[in-house]
Order: sequence, then structure tokens, then C-alpha cells
Amino acid sequence: MSDSTPPLLRRDTAGVATLTLNRPGSFNALSEEMLAALKEELGRLANDDQVRCVVIAAEGRAFCAGHDLKQMRANPDKAYYQALFTRCGQVMQAIVELPVPVIAKVQGIATAAGCQLVASCDLAVAARSARFAVSGINAGLFCSTPAVALSRNVARKRAMEMLLTGEFIDANTARDWGLVNRVAADDALDTAVDELTASICAKSAVAVRTGKAMFQRQLQMPLEEAYTFAGEVMACNMMAEDAGEGIDAFIEKRAPEWRHR
Amino acid sequence: MSDSTPPLLRRDTAGVATLTLNRPGSFNALSEEMLAALKEELGRLANDDQVRCVVIAAEGRAFCAGHDLKQMRANPDKAYYQALFTRCGQVMQAIVELPVPVIAKVQGIATAAGCQLVASCDLAVAARSARFAVSGINAGLFCSTPAVALSRNVARKRAMEMLLTGEFIDANTARDWGLVNRVAADDALDTAVDELTASICAKSAVAVRTGKAMFQRQLQMPLEEAYTFAGEVMACNMMAEDAGEGIDAFIEKRAPEWRHR
Amino acid sequence: MSDSTPPLLRRDTAGVATLTLNRPGSFNALSEEMLAALKEELGRLANDDQVRCVVIAAEGRAFCAGHDLKQMRANPDKAYYQALFTRCGQVMQAIVELPVPVIAKVQGIATAAGCQLVASCDLAVAARSARFAVSGINAGLFCSTPAVALSRNVARKRAMEMLLTGEFIDANTARDWGLVNRVAADDALDTAVDELTASICAKSAVAVRTGKAMFQRQLQMPLEEAYTFAGEVMACNMMAEDAGEGIDAFIEKRAPEWRHR
Repeated sequence: MSDSTPPLLRRDTAGVATLTLNRPGSFNALSEEMLAALKEELGRLANDDQVRCVVIAAEGRAFCAGHDLKQMRANPDKAYYQALFTRCGQVMQAIVELPVPVIAKVQGIATAAGCQLVASCDLAVAARSARFAVSGINAGLFCSTPAVALSRNVARKRAMEMLLTGEFIDANTARDWGLVNRVAADDALDTAVDELTASICAKSAVAVRTGKAMFQRQLQMPLEEAYTFAGEVMACNMMAEDAGEGIDAFIEKRAPEWRHR
Repeated sequence: MSDSTPPLLRRDTAGVATLTLNRPGSFNALSEEMLAALKEELGRLANDDQVRCVVIAAEGRAFCAGHDLKQMRANPDKAYYQALFTRCGQVMQAIVELPVPVIAKVQGIATAAGCQLVASCDLAVAARSARFAVSGINAGLFCSTPAVALSRNVARKRAMEMLLTGEFIDANTARDWGLVNRVAADDALDTAVDELTASICAKSAVAVRTGKAMFQRQLQMPLEEAYTFAGEVMACNMMAEDAGEGIDAFIEKRAPEWRHR
Repeated sequence: MSDSTPPLLRRDTAGVATLTLNRPGSFNALSEEMLAALKEELGRLANDDQVRCVVIAAEGRAFCAGHDLKQMRANPDKAYYQALFTRCGQVMQAIVELPVPVIAKVQGIATAAGCQLVASCDLAVAARSARFAVSGINAGLFCSTPAVALSRNVARKRAMEMLLTGEFIDANTARDWGLVNRVAADDALDTAVDELTASICAKSAVAVRTGKAMFQRQLQMPLEEAYTFAGEVMACNMMAEDAGEGIDAFIEKRAPEWRHR
């Protein structure tokens, strides 16, 4: 690309890494370059012990409008598409597998793979005017990979309706259906996200990392296996210094002093 | 049966096949004859390229009151019941596996296997006065096969409460719990269903068929497998003429011209 | 323990066994003794043909505040913790596997493994002032085993938010999210639970037992396997005397006379 503006920005503040989709002129479409940048940065974050949680935000009026349709049409080749969707799936799974929680911060529209991005995050906060759709169907392309993430967030008939009609739902509906956690007034979106990241950063790092990883893995297990796995994880968590300190602080009715802030 | 009235009617209008349960005198019970007619018609629809979506509707005051209890009592034989429930399960799974979306159009009561029929459809629209129950428990027969479909639509404690108490929920509750998509005033049910079928018929047929099938299959897969499968399906979808046309139309801000209407 | 008060009380009334957590001074913490008492009593109930349903209630201002943190800190040993969480998981799974429905009756707070206890029951009724949290994260200990039960009751982003923030949700939110079935005014909690147990006790015992067991098992099966299993279970249920009587009573518009009350 001739444009020298980086597609993705990263800013770190007190344990919170904010990744900002930075192609507002193209509604932050998930072009090859954007996906590559996300993949690279998520890989770096996976090995960054200083980071406590990650926010995926967006520059401009839209959160993310999904794949870059012009780029896709310029490469009418099945192998190209297969590789593209594989890469996109890897980015979404890298979010799920990241050792720390990932929060989507959503303004404007989140459509198709942009809606998938929201669904793939552990948590999501939306501006009241934000809107969500899996609208590929309007362009003759059913949102198949977004459906994977969406149908694991909202009840199946609701997911199916969104996928077949391509219609938007508003932020309050997204919250009522479980796609986002919190809705804030448009001018209070920053504050709402800051409250959530501050809450997570006030916790023990080892407990948060332990929990994020075990939560996502146990979702895919039958009940007995999940309990065996969770019991092992929790026994390890108990042996960490932070758990001892945290429980002592709780018993003594004082604030805990975490080892790793 | 001496009655020559067919238990199931089919009417096709502009790509929409409407199957109407037609035993209003017995609350459209799923008798052997009704199940056989549904199975036969769903088999025919599975091979009908002209059909874009299917509506399951009902004649009379009730949508469907479940199995035909008199017929069941007249055949007090375990092998008979086993065969009956197998056939019923096949009909429900044929709806899930049908290549096009199936919409339940619900008025009056939908109870036991009638409620299962609603749960098994991809989408459902209900009249405001419609009511839903899995009430076999009141007759000493826990709605086991309906539970399979119901528990895949609504949260498990809600499903369990309905199954153990046999109590009705109203249409708004069914919508809030995810069992139906839309609730319409009783005299606007036709319009509400027509809006939904019109929305689906305006889409590319190949995209709708691709999506319906992939959605149902990926629900049963772990995340990584689901993404691999969805990526392959979506790459194939991109190679269809309609996707190229749809994306070009989107980029050019014009209405798409689908190949297969 | 020097205290001779039993940690768990059992009272039987007309088919309803009520287990009451009886350590109000320690917010009914799930100490080793409490878990052992629960395990023993649930084992006894599993073989008690007279019991129609079980209520898990609590003495005092709190329902249950989770594990006994002082006892845990007094045993800083990984093998001890592993054994403790295994035992706790066995109790939770014993509730799921109990042949009759289990109802949580919740007042005050239900936190950590106390919230898990609510999630593990088939049904739950809460006082309006009840509150729910998985707050181990505040003490440096992510609620891993509670997450197993919670994430099978509520949508995953909601579960993740509760687990990462440790924040409380109120009774109405718990109902809206599917964690509890019914909310009653604080002074009407007894009545609300009695209504539910009376509804279940009015049903056929064989149908209730058949249904509880099949419901929990089929949740973990793919669709086709679930239908095969449910069809077999339902055919067996049809061969029970109660089903014949229940259906005849329904057809004859009279109240059924169950064989086994």
C-alpha cells in the first residue's frame, strides 16, 4: 500500500494495551494488511507480561465494516479466499487464546467480520448509537465465519435471523442478547471502558490470566472433564502467592497487595 | 383414516412453500399420518431448487398440540412408540437439515411436540396470543424428545422449568427467551411472516442455502473445527457468481441482480 | 470441630426433602464438613424412592459464601486443594445426577462456590434482595470451578464479566440472565418455593425422574444422538402405568391418579 499510515495503532497505559483499528476512511475494513497487523500485535501481546488486558478500539465513525470487499474482488481466486478466511479465523482465535482478557470498544457500526470481532472478544462495551449486523447476505455472501463467533454469543434463532436478514440490531438489543456487556452514552464510552479495565487491572494478574485461559478452554468440554480441569487449575491458582495474600487480606478486611501488578 | 381431507397442505407462492397443518379438529396433532405427510413433503422440498424458504403454518385455532394421544393409547406397544418417536425425530431433523430456512408461523397453542416443532425451525414468528408449553408431564409423559429441541433454544433452567411444571409461557416470554424471533398482533401475523420471507427471498439463493447448512452444522463443532469448516464454505460462496455480483453492486451502490432468484 | 451443631439439616415433608445449610455464622461456607455432609445426604437421596424433589436452602442471612477461606489457608498444600475442589465438583455433579429435581432457595448472598451451587441446581428461586457473584477474583483466586456451572447457565460474556470483575448482580438480573427461574418478595420466598415443589409433586414420579435424568444427559450429546436417546427414554416412559393413566385422564378430562405419589 502506498499509504504510510499504519493500519493498527498500539498504545499502552498502566497495563492496558489499546489496539486501534486505524483505517477510518475504509471503515476499518479487515484488509490483508489489517489482519496481518492484528496477528502480529496479538502474537507480541501473548508474550508480554506487563499487559493486564487489551482493548480493541477503532478510529473514526465506524468500529469495523468487515472484510475489504474491493481487495477481495481484486483477487477472484478460491485459494486466495481460503487463505484470507484462514488468516481471519486465526486472528479471531488468537483473541480467544490470548492470555489476558480482550475488550471490544464499539462505536458506529460493527458489521460482518467486524461483528465477529466483537463476538470474539471476552467482553464488549458499546456506545448507545452503535449498531451490529452480519450483513454479508446483502452482498450474496453469507457471513459464515462471523456466524461461528456470533452463534457462540447469542441464542441460535437470533443469530440465524441476523445472518439471514442482514438487519441491524442496536446497542441495547446487543446487550439484551449477550453480544455486548455494557452500553454507555456515546460521550461516556471512554469512561465505561476505563472502568472495566481499571476493575481488571486492580485484580491479581496471575488470577486473571489463569481464569481467562481456563474459562475459554472449559467451554468446549463435557461437564465431568471441565470439572477435573477446573479443579486442577484452581489448585494451582491457590498455590500462587497472590491467592494467599488475597485470602489473608479478605479475612483481615484490608486491601490485598498483589505481587505482580 | 376414513377422512379424505389431507393432513398437510402445501401452497407455493414466489419461492415460498407454505406447509399448513390441516387437522384443526384435533389441534393439528402429529398423528402417524401427519408425520408421514411432513416427512414426505420435507423430502420433496429438499430437492426443490425453486423454493427459497419454507413456512410451517397451521389451520384453525391451535398451531399444534403435539402427538395424537388417542392414537398412541390405541397402540400400547413399546416398539410402536419407539418407531413413532424415531419418525418424529426424523421430521424435526429434516427441518434442521433442509437446504432452505424454515419459519414457524404460530397462532394459538404450541404444546409438547408442537412446541418442539417451533424450536426445530430456523426462525419463528408468533401471534401475540400464542402460548407455548411442553406439557406432557401433566399426562405422566415427560416431553423428552421436545426437550432436545427446546434446550437448544432457551437457557437450561428455563427449559427445565417448562418441562417439569408443564406451564405455558406467552409469546412475549418466548421471544425474550429466544424461542421465537418476532411477535405480531394477532391480525398482523400474516404480514409479519410475509416481511420475513420477503427479506429472505430478496437475498441470493446460493448464499441463503450455503448459510443455512453451514450454520446448523458448525453449531455442533468445537471452535477450531468450526472455523476451518466455515472458512472453506465461505471461500466456495465467494466463487459463486452471486457473490461477485453482490459485492460489485455494494461497491457501486446499486441493487444486485442475482443469477438465481 | 468442637461445634456439635450439624452443618446440614434435612427435613422431609410430603415428598419434598429440604437440605438446609446450617452454618449461618460462617455464611454457610462449604467447609470440608459441609461438603462431606452434602455428599452423604445426596448419596442417601439418590436411593430414596419416597422423595419427589429436593430443596437446597440456607439458614441465616446468607445463602452460601463459597469455600471456607480460613480452612483453606490453614492447609497450604496443593494436594489438599486438589482434593477439596474434587470433592466440591463431586457434590455439584451429584446434584446434576440426582434422580429428582433440585431447587435452590436463595436469600442474601450466593458467592463463589455458593453461586456455583445455585447454577448447579435444576431450578432456582431467589428472594428479591438476593445477590450473586463469583468474587474469588477479589481474593486473587479466579472462580474456576464455579465458572464451569455458571457458563452453562448464562451467556458467556456475562459469565466472563462476573468472573473478571467479581461484581454482584441482583436477583432480577439473575432471572433475566437465566441463573434463577423465579424472584419472590423476600417474605414470599417460602410460598414461591412451595408453589414450585407442589407443582412437581403433583406430577407422576416416574415421569419426573425419567425427565430429569434424560434432560441433563442429552444436553451433552450432538443432535442426532440426543434424539435417539430421547426417543428410547420416551418409549420407556410410555410403557409406565402412569403414562397410560395420565393420557386416559387427559382424554377423559379428569384428574389423573398416579400409581406412585
